[in-house]
Amino acid sequence: MRHSLDIASLIAARKPGYTLPAQFHLSEEIFDLDVRLIFGCHWIYVGVEPEIPEPGDFFTVEIGPDSIIIVRDDDLAVRAFHNVCRHRGLRLRPPGHGIVGNLVCPYHQWTYNLRGELIHCKNMGEEFDRSQIRLKPVHVESLAGLLFICLTEAPSQGFDALRAALEPYIAPHDVRNTKVAFQKDILEEGNWKLTMENNRECYHCAANHPELTVPLLEPGFGYAPSPDNLAQMKEFEDAVTREHARWEGCGLPSAEIDRLEDVTGFRTIRLPIARSGESQTIDTKIACRKLLGELPRADLGGLSVWTQPNSWHHFMSDHIVTFSVLPVTAHRTLLRTRWLVHKDAQQGVDYDLDRLTSVWLATNAQDSSLVERTQQGVSSAAYQPGPYSPFTEGPVDKFTRWYLRRLAAGLGLHP
Amino acid sequence: MRHSLDIASLIAARKPGYTLPAQFHLSEEIFDLDVRLIFGCHWIYVGVEPEIPEPGDFFTVEIGPDSIIIVRDDDLAVRAFHNVCRHRGLRLRPPGHGIVGNLVCPYHQWTYNLRGELIHCKNMGEEFDRSQIRLKPVHVESLAGLLFICLTEAPSQGFDALRAALEPYIAPHDVRNTKVAFQKDILEEGNWKLTMENNRECYHCAANHPELTVPLLEPGFGYAPSPDNLAQMKEFEDAVTREHARWEGCGLPSAEIDRLEDVTGFRTIRLPIARSGESQTIDTKIACRKLLGELPRADLGGLSVWTQPNSWHHFMSDHIVTFSVLPVTAHRTLLRTRWLVHKDAQQGVDYDLDRLTSVWLATNAQDSSLVERTQQGVSSAAYQPGPYSPFTEGPVDKFTRWYLRRLAAGLGLHP
Amino acid sequence: MRHSLDIASLIAARKPGYTLPAQFHLSEEIFDLDVRLIFGCHWIYVGVEPEIPEPGDFFTVEIGPDSIIIVRDDDLAVRAFHNVCRHRGLRLRPPGHGIVGNLVCPYHQWTYNLRGELIHCKNMGEEFDRSQIRLKPVHVESLAGLLFICLTEAPSQGFDALRAALEPYIAPHDVRNTKVAFQKDILEEGNWKLTMENNRECYHCAANHPELTVPLLEPGFGYAPSPDNLAQMKEFEDAVTREHARWEGCGLPSAEIDRLEDVTGFRTIRLPIARSGESQTIDTKIACRKLLGELPRADLGGLSVWTQPNSWHHFMSDHIVTFSVLPVTAHRTLLRTRWLVHKDAQQGVDYDLDRLTSVWLATNAQDSSLVERTQQGVSSAAYQPGPYSPFTEGPVDKFTRWYLRRLAAGLGLHP
Repeated sequence: MRHSLDIASLIAARKPGYTLPAQFHLSEEIFDLDVRLIFGCHWIYVGVEPEIPEPGDFFTVEIGPDSIIIVRDDDLAVRAFHNVCRHRGLRLRPPGHGIVGNLVCPYHQWTYNLRGELIHCKNMGEEFDRSQIRLKPVHVESLAGLLFICLTEAPSQGFDALRAALEPYIAPHDVRNTKVAFQKDILEEGNWKLTMENNRECYHCAANHPELTVPLLEPGFGYAPSPDNLAQMKEFEDAVTREHARWEGCGLPSAEIDRLEDVTGFRTIRLPIARSGESQTIDTKIACRKLLGELPRADLGGLSVWTQPNSWHHFMSDHIVTFSVLPVTAHRTLLRTRWLVHKDAQQGVDYDLDRLTSVWLATNAQDSSLVERTQQGVSSAAYQPGPYSPFTEGPVDKFTRWYLRRLAAGLGLHP
Repeated sequence: MRHSLDIASLIAARKPGYTLPAQFHLSEEIFDLDVRLIFGCHWIYVGVEPEIPEPGDFFTVEIGPDSIIIVRDDDLAVRAFHNVCRHRGLRLRPPGHGIVGNLVCPYHQWTYNLRGELIHCKNMGEEFDRSQIRLKPVHVESLAGLLFICLTEAPSQGFDALRAALEPYIAPHDVRNTKVAFQKDILEEGNWKLTMENNRECYHCAANHPELTVPLLEPGFGYAPSPDNLAQMKEFEDAVTREHARWEGCGLPSAEIDRLEDVTGFRTIRLPIARSGESQTIDTKIACRKLLGELPRADLGGLSVWTQPNSWHHFMSDHIVTFSVLPVTAHRTLLRTRWLVHKDAQQGVDYDLDRLTSVWLATNAQDSSLVERTQQGVSSAAYQPGPYSPFTEGPVDKFTRWYLRRLAAGLGLHP
Repeated sequence: MRHSLDIASLIAARKPGYTLPAQFHLSEEIFDLDVRLIFGCHWIYVGVEPEIPEPGDFFTVEIGPDSIIIVRDDDLAVRAFHNVCRHRGLRLRPPGHGIVGNLVCPYHQWTYNLRGELIHCKNMGEEFDRSQIRLKPVHVESLAGLLFICLTEAPSQGFDALRAALEPYIAPHDVRNTKVAFQKDILEEGNWKLTMENNRECYHCAANHPELTVPLLEPGFGYAPSPDNLAQMKEFEDAVTREHARWEGCGLPSAEIDRLEDVTGFRTIRLPIARSGESQTIDTKIACRKLLGELPRADLGGLSVWTQPNSWHHFMSDHIVTFSVLPVTAHRTLLRTRWLVHKDAQQGVDYDLDRLTSVWLATNAQDSSLVERTQQGVSSAAYQPGPYSPFTEGPVDKFTRWYLRRLAAGLGLHP
């Protein structure tokens, strides 16, 4: 692959603490690299185990031009395969989810079992060695019920460390005993990195998210003490200290872990919720009467988890909201959001769907508009990288640095 | 023209007996070569004489960005021209058909007669030599009423051989005395070569074409004897031998001719139809009471003709179905299908349009979906060329080989 | 920026007196150069002062991927800025017009005054020097109320000469005391240069513009004497001489000025209108009872002004029609047309909107179709540049020459 852009110079040209040069959001060539080196070589969050509880249950994930099938095998293991028949290349299953016995290609009925093995095909003759052919496997791991895939043969290191660190935090919310109450896909008209940058700060929250800022306390989402906010930060940090002591007393790990700079980068912290302290709802009260796992009470704040390069999650006592960012083209991104509740909770009895989803449906729509307008702005010849706020946009800068370092590594460039 | 792809290496990299590397279906650069070297330098099937029976009748054909006008001149000759005014370049006629006296450009009324000569233009002054300017001509030939064009100045050889071979087969169906009962254009969301590969095998028919496989006996469409199908093939070949004797006795040449590897490649054979043996209809009976030409009876099976790179045809006793494949973009293809009946047949009296068209309308829709899903699959980074069945996909392999050889020749590469 | 096209050879290859090679209308690379070197470095007509009469009034202009805000400041000066926040790059305002106090970015509320200075931003810390940051300014000039912008830092020369020449012609129509009675945006499916070429001749008018040719006398729009039209031209030129004497007597400069070859190229002439001689309406009578400025009578013909590279204007006694051509993509162009009447004229009383707009609405739609079909034709491999008429397409040739010379200059090529 020859590059008409000089990517190394573009990477080197990035001014520390400033937004990315425009080409990173516009170039088809860099988009192809993003798909191949970022999404192709790192652990990508794609969904949750409760979507595929039974053998034969599957769903697909589309990443740029690629499609992957995530399926539960008869032995209850979760497996993942490229959604491409090994005969004529047909996409085996259209986007979505369903139930299968085997994976049968509709074109010529080549049939694969749920381990990806070609178990049946007609007219290929006696010399044809079926055992040499199988669906191309994709690495898949479950982190306490959250499913991550890695497309490369030798997956990037660090998933074990991520699991060891995060499992104690997430486990009490018992993801495996939830169900998907609602899923919403939004196509955002911007590069996937603008969607991620938008997620990694709350500087924009007060003016743009009237619903979200009812439960959310912005300082927890990337704020650092500054001369302007010393009193506000002190108050917030006192609240965190107080609540962490209470939550840890309930057996809930709460302290911040920030390993966003790792190859398999992540961050977590349990954060206070405003007012009643219960949930990310419009009145801060739980949206589902049936609490998750064995959680003892409703007012447990929200455990937030962020992973590089494509996810974030909020775990409350009553429900979980979990987000997956999937690149479509250089200027289009899928944001897939799932709301999880206890698997035995009944809609209309234990929870009302509108109440459960209204805050994040509104917030996603607001962010989608901001991402679209940022894409428009960075498309202009007049755009030049601007300065991040050192007090509210530190995690954005960390995302940007992580991205450039991983891109450089994938290209074999010296850091 | 500089190539950013190394086409020669891509051609050389193709593994015999395997599907094409993905770039052949995805690259805009290869698409441009396909338009220029395959569709620009070979004999392309575009329609039938009965569409333009009278002087001034014309229709247009769009091939990638090009448009060609096929018109009947006052002397009843069929002529073809590039649909581009020689003054400011306006497309003279929008896609479709119609009747004209002369070809008048709507922009400044430059007027061409049906031989393409500029016979009138205002305001060009006395020094302007109108006789030096004419619509750019395109070679056009009629094969027993089927119209083929060749865009290059020195057309590729072999049309005379094709005509000599096929005319005796097709003539009894008397195409010139038919009319177009129906035409259907489908835009398939795939590369034109996937449309062609889909046509060149019937391995996929049983599971995908419940209507077509009522009249059609799959073994005639590319099957070769294999250990699995020896009995079935023996029975089929006996039927062919028996029917060929009967049809030849009626004066209908029936034996297979396979010259698919020629520059002007083609294949023909008259094949049995199932059950009543009459026609490709849902009950295998004729759809039109008025038989074609001087044909003596209804149960004459189906004469099939395939040409490289873009057509196939089925001639029955009562009607003809004729297909033209036209590239639109690298990932979009027009499939134009026409149903012909005797010119004196009356709709509602001699034939019912639904009965006439239902089998192939359904089949085309099914194939279009398969082509679209193949395009999606080969777009994935996980796609790699897969093995053709030596017993059912031989003609697909022949198409692929023909294509690569002709592309290499067009590029001046050694074979 | 590396070029895969050899632009210099393409420019050199252009045959004098012939239309442009196709690549100039098709290539994305050349489109990017057009945006950067033609629209980025010359004076571009974008609108009129009456659209922003009061402080805080603004409208946006989109040129390819760029967007510019034109705003009236509190001191009544007109200012222009790139519509891009200096922080994260968001497009500050969506396309359109409105009223603002300051320009506030919706993302993080960075706030700019109407001089473009950053007057407020939170969370940036004490070391952040706000005074170093401002919206990128764009040069803007008013020519008797017509607004032109120039995006480059050192604007191309010649605007003063254009102003000195044109102001006496335009001033009597008193643009600043008009209002926009109607604005119509058309997206034309062709390259912007085809829209311009279409404007620069009236050879196509008789056959395509039945409404426009009621008031318009074609010879005034680019015709030169030819052996064919000597009598017609003589009659027309006599009428021009006679009317010019009458109009100059009324204090209206009327003689032709042709400086289309200048860097800041333009042409003007006051031309007779057919029949009643009043206005470009379907009956040639004025459409608005309230005349512009201090004009003494209705039958004053039409003052036409053309500027390179993107505008034309017709000033009558009762109304003005003014056109701005804005490139969108290589094959899509925005034609923005505004109809101006006296600011005190009342719709339904002094003028009827249908009567005011019907001729040019119809004409624009007809031209849009011609541009689209020219784009289709030049996309064909069969297109080759054709000869301009020396007697009716001289101004088209001048536009083409101007364009190529300015492109070459922008690329630093020797002429």
